Amino acid sequence: MLERTQEEIDELFMLKAMDEAAEAFEEDEVPIGAIVVVNGKIIARAHNLTERLCDVTAHAEMQAITAAANYLGGKYLTDCTIYVTVEPCAMCAAALGWAQIGRVVYGAADEKRGYRKLYGNDRGPFHPKTKITPGLLADESSQLMKSFFRSKR
Amino acid sequence: MLERTQEEIDELFMLKAMDEAAEAFEEDEVPIGAIVVVNGKIIARAHNLTERLCDVTAHAEMQAITAAANYLGGKYLTDCTIYVTVEPCAMCAAALGWAQIGRVVYGAADEKRGYRKLYGNDRGPFHPKTKITPGLLADESSQLMKSFFRSKR
Repeated sequence: MLERTQEEIDELFMLKAMDEAAEAFEEDEVPIGAIVVVNGKIIARAHNLTERLCDVTAHAEMQAITAAANYLGGKYLTDCTIYVTVEPCAMCAAALGWAQIGRVVYGAADEKRGYRKLYGNDRGPFHPKTKITPGLLADESSQLMKSFFRSKR
Repeated sequence: MLERTQEEIDELFMLKAMDEAAEAFEEDEVPIGAIVVVNGKIIARAHNLTERLCDVTAHAEMQAITAAANYLGGKYLTDCTIYVTVEPCAMCAAALGWAQIGRVVYGAADEKRGYRKLYGNDRGPFHPKTKITPGLLADESSQLMKSFFRSKR
């Protein structure tokens, strides 16, 4: 059986998160998607729904956290990885901190609203044990965001 | 008709938030309550439900934001005041920032998990126009939190 490297696995999962982002785009939502994986299995997928739900808290990550905890029957996501197409905002990063998520893999940086700007550092409010992998498929994700905001002008 | 000062009004509403916190306590949840007020009317009330919902995002403020936006039919809470019994955490403060809430009145400081520690300042991620009133009924709220954690030992 073909063995995949961690990089290849990460890319495959990030592509799934991109699919979610594309769905958001189609629904006229800011195109950000997230999936949560545990032991190589997707246990939650979500995309931004702030417009449809009329709720600023309905970011992809927030819904993914809730869904994953629901699936696992426990609040803490210590063995999970979240793949999210854009750098989490301050709210989502703090929520991932509360969830003590094991690993965060994100795509495009968000210079304005990303957690790094608000917290003033790369670790932000994440749990000390959380691993962070930035920049995966960043160009693709960034391109999707740009197309979206261009279409809004 | 007796006219109330803003301080008196604030205290009355904070007592309602304290009622919510007391309900959380009875349900064996960390006792934090929040209400959202617009034009002198309560449009949302909530208390922490992280245990029952098995969801780290189910803080009082998060639920109150969602409920208030739902009531108003709009995402932004610019004309609203939230009364919350404890200093919001980094997640809730950022959510209140996204909601562009008009005013935040909170009770007890949270030295460990409060937003001021994580953001390193008093303004945190709030909207530039958001007014912040800290310390209202702080002793009562702090006492409730202490009793709760003492009962857990």
